[in-house]
Amino acid sequence: MTTWKNNVRTVVPYTPGEQPKTKVIKLNTNENPYPPSPLVGRAISDLDLDSLRKYPDPSCSSLINTLAKYHSVEPENVFVGVGSDDVLAMSFLTFFNSKAPIFFPDITYSFYDVWADLFRIPYEVKKLDSDFKLVASDYSEPCSGIVIPNPNAPTGISEPVSFFENIVKEHPECVVIIDEAYVDFGSESCLPLVNKYDNVLVVRTFSKSRAMAGNRIGYAIGNKELIKYLSDCKFSFNSYTMDAITLKAGVASIEDDEYFKARINDVINTREWTKEKLKGLGFSFPDSKSNFIFAKHESIEATHIFEELKKRGIYVRHFSKPERINDYLRISIGTAEEMNTFIEELGKIIEGV
Amino acid sequence: MTTWKNNVRTVVPYTPGEQPKTKVIKLNTNENPYPPSPLVGRAISDLDLDSLRKYPDPSCSSLINTLAKYHSVEPENVFVGVGSDDVLAMSFLTFFNSKAPIFFPDITYSFYDVWADLFRIPYEVKKLDSDFKLVASDYSEPCSGIVIPNPNAPTGISEPVSFFENIVKEHPECVVIIDEAYVDFGSESCLPLVNKYDNVLVVRTFSKSRAMAGNRIGYAIGNKELIKYLSDCKFSFNSYTMDAITLKAGVASIEDDEYFKARINDVINTREWTKEKLKGLGFSFPDSKSNFIFAKHESIEATHIFEELKKRGIYVRHFSKPERINDYLRISIGTAEEMNTFIEELGKIIEGV
Repeated sequence: MTTWKNNVRTVVPYTPGEQPKTKVIKLNTNENPYPPSPLVGRAISDLDLDSLRKYPDPSCSSLINTLAKYHSVEPENVFVGVGSDDVLAMSFLTFFNSKAPIFFPDITYSFYDVWADLFRIPYEVKKLDSDFKLVASDYSEPCSGIVIPNPNAPTGISEPVSFFENIVKEHPECVVIIDEAYVDFGSESCLPLVNKYDNVLVVRTFSKSRAMAGNRIGYAIGNKELIKYLSDCKFSFNSYTMDAITLKAGVASIEDDEYFKARINDVINTREWTKEKLKGLGFSFPDSKSNFIFAKHESIEATHIFEELKKRGIYVRHFSKPERINDYLRISIGTAEEMNTFIEELGKIIEGV
Repeated sequence: MTTWKNNVRTVVPYTPGEQPKTKVIKLNTNENPYPPSPLVGRAISDLDLDSLRKYPDPSCSSLINTLAKYHSVEPENVFVGVGSDDVLAMSFLTFFNSKAPIFFPDITYSFYDVWADLFRIPYEVKKLDSDFKLVASDYSEPCSGIVIPNPNAPTGISEPVSFFENIVKEHPECVVIIDEAYVDFGSESCLPLVNKYDNVLVVRTFSKSRAMAGNRIGYAIGNKELIKYLSDCKFSFNSYTMDAITLKAGVASIEDDEYFKARINDVINTREWTKEKLKGLGFSFPDSKSNFIFAKHESIEATHIFEELKKRGIYVRHFSKPERINDYLRISIGTAEEMNTFIEELGKIIEGV
């Protein structure tokens, strides 16, 4: 009899946003509407084909050194992975190795509970208040780990560094992870905390602000001892996570800071324009500091708007759970032109109800 | 007081082979001496930069469909990952989820015990016989999983499919993983077993025979249910492991089967030439069916030869543990020209003793 299934780790996996295969306006996965820096393109096309036969540098030193210089830290403070999901998964595996629960918000990046389930890490979710804000006192009990995005997703709300510094200070017994996937779009970064505390890990990604979701690059910055533990686990899982082309592309992106800042500025301007238009159409939303807006209409159900937009080739994201965000849509910021079309179509949908 | 270290998973990571940064003859990491197919180069240079801003297809359908067609299986039988290390790590996590031990050989790929330690999987190593051959009866007790490379590394010895079929048949209670990293260099593949048994997983890599170590592509073929469990765990770890460029490069490699077979033929011819020359210099070795030779000199210590070769800019691999392979060197097959230089220098070293 087949009994191998008894030894299988069964899980309910994370469901990524839809990747439609036809041409649409894609405002559902918080991608950047602009291409990566032209230097990234050049780094890829200049590649020496023969070099691919060799294993890439397992220490990823070119990319790590570039990131360290950019953030004014030492290379030993930097860890890189296959997108920030890889960095976060490895961090959960490394740092949340206890029978006591970890804490994270109830409304947040929907991968945190998936990783906790995968690694059998107990967890407690802490409810955001009625304005979707983090409640500092919720995070003061002892625990075995904390993970919070800043700005939070899908709300877009950010908190000042002082908010996180208090949490980090209160928890010498565990590692506090600040997930800064969206920080470049106008929030304060917790990176300065890394020099003051040995139990804080700041996680970043190239997928949003650097327009490189297709390349898969994420990184973490923390004190050297923390990074050493993380690297040891990573080297016990897969020595060669970062391929040769990705390493080159990552370096090229960091080297073109002017382009990077200009495109972020474009996204922020379009976001602020979109906020005004959404208000005019009867939407309310927390003040987003990210590249998306989490919005609710005063009278029309989110599922109706979601379906009508989809019919018109415009994809946004709708989360059916938990119930109190059931009426919200998460709208990624596209180009000015895309958002113009989006607002026009949205106006027609609202008029048609 | 800092007590976060109590919650940390501490491990002894795998040590990859040296990646020297100066120009040398690199016969230490079983890389292919030839570049990947020119079609791979074209796929990379033809890339649309703008496409990188979007997440890659999380289902990796282009690559999975191409591999399925190539191996005459269904796409649901195929799983892809960031090198076969990623595929194997995920397989250990998914299938070896029990308190009973898993089995693997004592002399084998040195990552198996590292993964077992990382995931706290108990294991028993089974001793190869005095000719470094697998002993079938060692694998007949009930267990919670088995992993064996065919051909085995670093010995290069391969067994026929019937050897593995018996093991798979004897173990309906667990998943048996056949690690075929080197199978393309002249061994029988266990792929036909996938259609007959639901508990066998065959793992492959693009790093050796496809000369794409720099790209990081590995895959597994197994029955649909097995692949579903593996995918669920993978999607709980990182939804987007395979970047957009790597997916394209992988498809291009499979599509150039003529180039692939010609380069394998070159490596096999050079291996057989090298065997003759090594014999002439007083070396003995198991009959390798891989892209390396595991050789011992009749009188000179391996560490001496290793150091002397290194001085001459030729890197081979030496494993100090276990003790009974202390006198062997693992020599990857380079180009005909590289192996000629290697044999010449080796001759001088032996003369000089």
